Amino acid sequence: MSLTRIHNLSISLDGFATGEPQSAEAPFGHAGQRLHQWMFGTRFWDASGTAGVDDAFAERHSQGIGAEIMGAHKFGPPGWQDDREWKGWWGPNPPFHTPTFVLTHHPRPSIEMEGGTTFHFLNAAPAEALDTAREAANGLDVRIGGGPSVVRDFLAAGLVDHMHLVQVPIVLGRGVRIWDGLEALEDAYDVEAVSSPSGVTHLTFTRRVAP
Amino acid sequence: MSLTRIHNLSISLDGFATGEPQSAEAPFGHAGQRLHQWMFGTRFWDASGTAGVDDAFAERHSQGIGAEIMGAHKFGPPGWQDDREWKGWWGPNPPFHTPTFVLTHHPRPSIEMEGGTTFHFLNAAPAEALDTAREAANGLDVRIGGGPSVVRDFLAAGLVDHMHLVQVPIVLGRGVRIWDGLEALEDAYDVEAVSSPSGVTHLTFTRRVAP
Repeated sequence: MSLTRIHNLSISLDGFATGEPQSAEAPFGHAGQRLHQWMFGTRFWDASGTAGVDDAFAERHSQGIGAEIMGAHKFGPPGWQDDREWKGWWGPNPPFHTPTFVLTHHPRPSIEMEGGTTFHFLNAAPAEALDTAREAANGLDVRIGGGPSVVRDFLAAGLVDHMHLVQVPIVLGRGVRIWDGLEALEDAYDVEAVSSPSGVTHLTFTRRVAP
Repeated sequence: MSLTRIHNLSISLDGFATGEPQSAEAPFGHAGQRLHQWMFGTRFWDASGTAGVDDAFAERHSQGIGAEIMGAHKFGPPGWQDDREWKGWWGPNPPFHTPTFVLTHHPRPSIEMEGGTTFHFLNAAPAEALDTAREAANGLDVRIGGGPSVVRDFLAAGLVDHMHLVQVPIVLGRGVRIWDGLEALEDAYDVEAVSSPSGVTHLTFTRRVAP
């Protein structure tokens, strides 16, 4: 069975998954790289990194994934839709290596990159986008890649089977919150928390199956 | 040296320390008792409870405390100021056992209860209230007892030395948030997270001392 998964989505103590304002120079706004520092210390990111709990969670990002869905804000800075040459933040070989569906109100022709990533552009609601990505995933799982508003939309629509959040001990104060509109989310999930020696806390949400 | 401390302040994943609306029947609104279930399972609460990490944190609530400061919303439901007979939620022997200062715009005469608790009513800003409580604490520490808006006011004023929060794996969606207006709080504190087998995560903030 093909699952819908979220991995390595980092949030502040106050629940912001990105700061503000987003720009070409600051993809995460005033948060800078602080939300992702934990990941840079892992073997998943760098061969000289740690192999502990942070790494165990981080490396699941790519395992068994056949397609990604991301929001327009993840693909580029405000205005990228007007730049016909924009191909994402990640250079010629993006770290997705699968079909990758970018949700946007301004679709454009698909872009084939090196390393197996092809960007497709979809103007679609979550359920419809998921159907399209699921088909492209060819039996593997679909990752909802973020940002926070897209993750929220998929959670609110009840489409997520597994979510891994990483809570970083900083208070961002402003940005885009992950939790808004998700009251009682725990009713549908088993929630587990495990703190890491690095200072972050990993939260996993596993969808409950009716008995 | 007398410290200013916060203990056992329970919050949801989305940072709410109480639900809504508050009433005589529901002191924590729609949150009910869900934020404090972890504590009811400890030896601190009941002699048959657990003695693990939840208990280790919980029992520090009273150790070395000489006075408490609380907000009007902790002392009673909306409108208690109009009830001359209201003496708090806790019956004749409240669990404070020290001078306890209630911040209110409608001060009234002090009330001496059983077990060492005396309620005093203060119309004062955080720093002034803390001076008064510190004097009453007679060399011991002062606890900021909540609710969340009072805790926020004392944090924002830089008056808190130690804070212990307990993050409960539920999404409340509405209520009173602990984090609002506290951007970059971590600059002044060492923050530690430890998850408990009960499912909650204990967060401790220890004020950094200039080297």
